[in-house]
Amino acid sequence: MHSFQKFIHRELTLKMSNENKIINQFLRPLALNKESQNLKNDAAVLEKVSSNYIISSDMMIENIHFHKGDDPKTLAKKLLRVNMSDIAAMGCIPYGYILNLGLPKSNTNIWLKSFCNGLRIDQKYFNLKLLGGDLSKSKVIFLSVTIIGKKEKCILNCCTANNGSDIFVSGTLGDAALGLFLKQNPNFSVDDKLKNFFLNKLHNPSPRIELGHSLCGYADSCTDISDGLILDLEKISSLSSLKSTIFLKQIPLSVQAKKMKKIFKNDNFFWEKIITGGEDYELVFSMSKLKQKFFFKKQSKLLQKVKKIGFFEKGNGCRVVKLNNKDFTFKKKIGYSHF
Amino acid sequence: MHSFQKFIHRELTLKMSNENKIINQFLRPLALNKESQNLKNDAAVLEKVSSNYIISSDMMIENIHFHKGDDPKTLAKKLLRVNMSDIAAMGCIPYGYILNLGLPKSNTNIWLKSFCNGLRIDQKYFNLKLLGGDLSKSKVIFLSVTIIGKKEKCILNCCTANNGSDIFVSGTLGDAALGLFLKQNPNFSVDDKLKNFFLNKLHNPSPRIELGHSLCGYADSCTDISDGLILDLEKISSLSSLKSTIFLKQIPLSVQAKKMKKIFKNDNFFWEKIITGGEDYELVFSMSKLKQKFFFKKQSKLLQKVKKIGFFEKGNGCRVVKLNNKDFTFKKKIGYSHF
Repeated sequence: MHSFQKFIHRELTLKMSNENKIINQFLRPLALNKESQNLKNDAAVLEKVSSNYIISSDMMIENIHFHKGDDPKTLAKKLLRVNMSDIAAMGCIPYGYILNLGLPKSNTNIWLKSFCNGLRIDQKYFNLKLLGGDLSKSKVIFLSVTIIGKKEKCILNCCTANNGSDIFVSGTLGDAALGLFLKQNPNFSVDDKLKNFFLNKLHNPSPRIELGHSLCGYADSCTDISDGLILDLEKISSLSSLKSTIFLKQIPLSVQAKKMKKIFKNDNFFWEKIITGGEDYELVFSMSKLKQKFFFKKQSKLLQKVKKIGFFEKGNGCRVVKLNNKDFTFKKKIGYSHF
Repeated sequence: MHSFQKFIHRELTLKMSNENKIINQFLRPLALNKESQNLKNDAAVLEKVSSNYIISSDMMIENIHFHKGDDPKTLAKKLLRVNMSDIAAMGCIPYGYILNLGLPKSNTNIWLKSFCNGLRIDQKYFNLKLLGGDLSKSKVIFLSVTIIGKKEKCILNCCTANNGSDIFVSGTLGDAALGLFLKQNPNFSVDDKLKNFFLNKLHNPSPRIELGHSLCGYADSCTDISDGLILDLEKISSLSSLKSTIFLKQIPLSVQAKKMKKIFKNDNFFWEKIITGGEDYELVFSMSKLKQKFFFKKQSKLLQKVKKIGFFEKGNGCRVVKLNNKDFTFKKKIGYSHF
């Protein structure tokens, strides 16, 4: 069909359509790699590798995942990063991606210039290749990336935690959720510096590629926290047939989140945002006590980057222990359902 | 992000959302394969192969590529088939796909039941695996497939024709274009049987997988005719730095297209539809005279399935020779530009 590959060549013999111009001007420069076949074939050819490829896909649709006015450069980076986060969670290395773009006819060039700038920056930063894709007119902006990762050391399993393993998370949790809260409540009184910190965490997640890779041989389960810590932990727990217990006092918070905790006054409301809000794109993983010894000896610098928040034991479900040692009960666990 | 993989597990511990129900009811049964990891991981794991994978993607968007009332089962099949056509054009074998669905909230279940039935039928027919994907709410229906193919014998090149090679096409040309014409002109007087033939050719393309595969070692160029014979030939010509000459009297027409030729009366209008209308998803390929000898000896049954329509020589562009031996001149070469 009308893939990038097809369009790209119309320029050669025919009066260039706007479509060709768009692809040549914005997308072709991003696909200068052997695998894309310089867009001269009907499909891209993946390098022959002695290990496995992994593949995943995520969409972002206008009015659902973002709004018309959102900065295209930032959208591009988030689109790549949420996709790379799935690769990181499996301990693999991002390799390349297929990009599908549905765009309105108006302002296409201005929008694409900024969007492709975002792609270019993150392609370079993460050593990621644009392999091909498809472009179409669309009333609302539709963005989709299918990402390919390469196994290097191992493929981590999401949901095969062991009884007795401790639960760890990377980074700080809840910052993106607080960003979303502030975006949805523009009249909520908070200083700009604080607001910008949370919005940045919402818009610029960091796929934990290095950490995921380093967990090979050590972690018995690992996933990225996209749906909120609790939901992702419940998934691991149920598929591992174990019970997870985590302690709020152990949850890593940013200095900024601690400030928000004071502003909110309502502790339960605050903690619910932090542990169910989602879009953290940090890793949650489990590791036996024995493996921890070897892991943290070898990867001592990671000691500061991850935090033990609880453990797995026989049973089922996910128990959250409050600062007062009582169990936390949730108003809602799923933040959002599309249907 | 919110991939199938993520959603699927909410059911296990939480009250199922409609989203989970949709995935469990409709999509999960299509992804019962090892590579999808039973949707238990953050990404699908492709089989380790000793050759190459190829990858391509095509979208279909409501009001652009189809209309709300179009049969979802037929849409599903077309979505898979246009994607498989790119794999076929490179001489490879379809392996699996990633599916992205953006769907309106209303009538989702009725629509999905039919859509997934179409997927199921063609998955079975073409031995194709659903590997994963993403589901989202969307105001208009958005469909995207990223398809993976496996190299078996070779990877055919689109655009490396040799001087002196003859040009061949598979099947009959223009039937889909006539189908589109009749769809866009519902008052055009033609009997139902004829109309249904063309609509079926428009909606149910046949990816030429077996033919593409058999061309390995013989064809020096090959692509699928998606943008119309002339545009695709011009692409091959320009990238091969050769001139293509084809003869209208050689173009394979269906019995039904011949009937339409009589109805149209305007010969030029008819032929323009046939050779520029697009969406044929037949293969156009080139082969040297020497290779033809061996190829048609070995693949004698293919003699009936392909037709020699012209040749490549030194020069540039694409020359079309009419029945009266004069050159054909086009009103327009590109049927559609998105921007």
